Amino acid sequence: MISPQLLTLLSDFGLSDIYVGVMKGVIARINPEMRVIDLTHQIPPQNIAAARFCLMSACPYFPDGTVHMAVVDPGVGSTRRAVAVEFAHGFLVAPDNGIISGVLSQSRAIRAVELTNPQYWRVPNPSYTFHGRDIFAPCAAHLASGVPIKNLGREIDIDSLVELNLPKCCYITTGAVGCIQYIDIFGNLITNIPGSYVEGKTWHIVVGNLKIKGGATYNSVPIDSAIALVGSEGWVEIAINRGNAQQQLNIQLAQTVEVGAG
Amino acid sequence: MISPQLLTLLSDFGLSDIYVGVMKGVIARINPEMRVIDLTHQIPPQNIAAARFCLMSACPYFPDGTVHMAVVDPGVGSTRRAVAVEFAHGFLVAPDNGIISGVLSQSRAIRAVELTNPQYWRVPNPSYTFHGRDIFAPCAAHLASGVPIKNLGREIDIDSLVELNLPKCCYITTGAVGCIQYIDIFGNLITNIPGSYVEGKTWHIVVGNLKIKGGATYNSVPIDSAIALVGSEGWVEIAINRGNAQQQLNIQLAQTVEVGAG
Amino acid sequence: MISPQLLTLLSDFGLSDIYVGVMKGVIARINPEMRVIDLTHQIPPQNIAAARFCLMSACPYFPDGTVHMAVVDPGVGSTRRAVAVEFAHGFLVAPDNGIISGVLSQSRAIRAVELTNPQYWRVPNPSYTFHGRDIFAPCAAHLASGVPIKNLGREIDIDSLVELNLPKCCYITTGAVGCIQYIDIFGNLITNIPGSYVEGKTWHIVVGNLKIKGGATYNSVPIDSAIALVGSEGWVEIAINRGNAQQQLNIQLAQTVEVGAG
Repeated sequence: MISPQLLTLLSDFGLSDIYVGVMKGVIARINPEMRVIDLTHQIPPQNIAAARFCLMSACPYFPDGTVHMAVVDPGVGSTRRAVAVEFAHGFLVAPDNGIISGVLSQSRAIRAVELTNPQYWRVPNPSYTFHGRDIFAPCAAHLASGVPIKNLGREIDIDSLVELNLPKCCYITTGAVGCIQYIDIFGNLITNIPGSYVEGKTWHIVVGNLKIKGGATYNSVPIDSAIALVGSEGWVEIAINRGNAQQQLNIQLAQTVEVGAG
Repeated sequence: MISPQLLTLLSDFGLSDIYVGVMKGVIARINPEMRVIDLTHQIPPQNIAAARFCLMSACPYFPDGTVHMAVVDPGVGSTRRAVAVEFAHGFLVAPDNGIISGVLSQSRAIRAVELTNPQYWRVPNPSYTFHGRDIFAPCAAHLASGVPIKNLGREIDIDSLVELNLPKCCYITTGAVGCIQYIDIFGNLITNIPGSYVEGKTWHIVVGNLKIKGGATYNSVPIDSAIALVGSEGWVEIAINRGNAQQQLNIQLAQTVEVGAG
Repeated sequence: MISPQLLTLLSDFGLSDIYVGVMKGVIARINPEMRVIDLTHQIPPQNIAAARFCLMSACPYFPDGTVHMAVVDPGVGSTRRAVAVEFAHGFLVAPDNGIISGVLSQSRAIRAVELTNPQYWRVPNPSYTFHGRDIFAPCAAHLASGVPIKNLGREIDIDSLVELNLPKCCYITTGAVGCIQYIDIFGNLITNIPGSYVEGKTWHIVVGNLKIKGGATYNSVPIDSAIALVGSEGWVEIAINRGNAQQQLNIQLAQTVEVGAG
């Protein structure tokens, strides 16, 4: 057992409305001692791909046993399943729409249940539009408080969990081809090419008409110059020293990039 | 007595400045064990009506005994009163400008005091411009730590508390007439017509030149189509499936809406 | 020893990405009981002057012994030092780029170390781009958990800590000359002229072509009128009653202001 219990929250609810605060109220009613950490609530609305990337990137930094609740849920009220999943390092509570498939690509699911047991919902007849408050938050709070995952609903096949199809990174004779998989708030362009691929090599990256030299730090090029480097999450990324690469280079999400030698 | 103590914060201070952090420092000095939950700090500046709606909507989800502090305070430094109010489910600490009148319309005040006792202020001579830090936060922290409400200042008549005048929802032979009382960050248009009025009926809503059919979930209409439904807070609302109703329908706060049968 | 431990965070990381959440995960792994308060994460990107002002303004409201971690770090990956500093009221953990020089101008440093001991880093080979996660957060968490500051690395001369050069406020025969040192989210223009200079006097402020009368509260002038007053942080500031002074007066950061009698 973990003590004290830790629960993280990720959503596209923003911080302008009271939705996040209300979920914390629901959690506090179930377990007033629960510690809650926000990963972010500013995922672009209904952007499951961005949420998947953020959740996958954040999970490894948390203590084993942490319950991660992630709600970006364009299908709320439809037939998409609400699930809880156990993996080697903790638990995931989320809609089954691919949002957790990044974490599970790094650490395989051990067990999964559909959240069908209304005993652990906030109310027996949940809102059609806010399962974060009525199903996900209470189930996550109970799970983090020690309720066994199997109590939350009927077990489902872990191979039936929805995966998100992203263009994969692949390797060719002259290098690696991937895409921009995420753009952070600083405008840094994060590819899906693993940093390990370029480690110890002299390398460059090609994107559109641009060829950018690989380096180690933002400061290894002059201010306002572009650099490719291995970012803090372990992916090849493109940045501008003290600038905004997305705006200055005019590169978009999902745009193809290619890494080569020299 | 509640244990551990819980305090919620709502304001229009935003998260760019240190104002919210400073209030939490003041609270930590009084009671380092206090648990603090942010409802939101992004109420549109000085918009008491929005703050009133958010506070009224959030309170019911918190444990009984919670202290809710709400500071949207265009009259700071004027003669408006600073008050603490006890109601059936907890306590409110706020300027007396109508911000708490939504909560009190749902659960009548039991007792009210003006925060006149400087012993519970941060300093005997508070800032003219930041009562959140110097009066509301310390009084709320003391109250949530067990100080009796009557110690915070002189008792005042609960009928003297300021109410906010909003256009009320009224019922006519052909249906209900109300207005848009709040627009959330997704652009969902929330009316002041209670969802209970349309439950079990076939219904539609008229706003401007538009007539929109009532339904149950965002997904019961095609993507990018408008739908009227009962939102998660229990009010009739207008939404666009995976879109932004405010922008796409060009509807404003306070605009009149009418619900009819069929 | 302080109990419970308190750690504050200030950065320019924003709340859209998971960077802040990840730092809190790193802290929770080291000490799951640690209490963390966000000062703000919305310092304008790489704006050390704004971070310095915010940190200096917030520190005095926290309990003695609090560890304040501040990361606005355009030089990450360069040769700038990472430091921990003890002062009379607590501890500072930050890059040595001037960000802590405001706090230390009010309360002199007692002891300073460079964070050279990898035993207290998250990993022996930290990221080149995210020392907040790999060096500052873990060192701050250990420090707030009772690790002696001298264990974190080699002691350095407190006089070698970087200071940020800002135009100073100076006094002339007809009054005081200073500048706008910070603009908050409401558009209030905060000068570097101490409020104590105008206390008990009849005074005005001149900025550009404008002469604005000194007063006590926003409400002492009509709505939409400009007023100069002593703000909640103790500095002379310029505001518009229920308006935005920056936008309505078109005044910029660092612009010269002059206070005179009458």
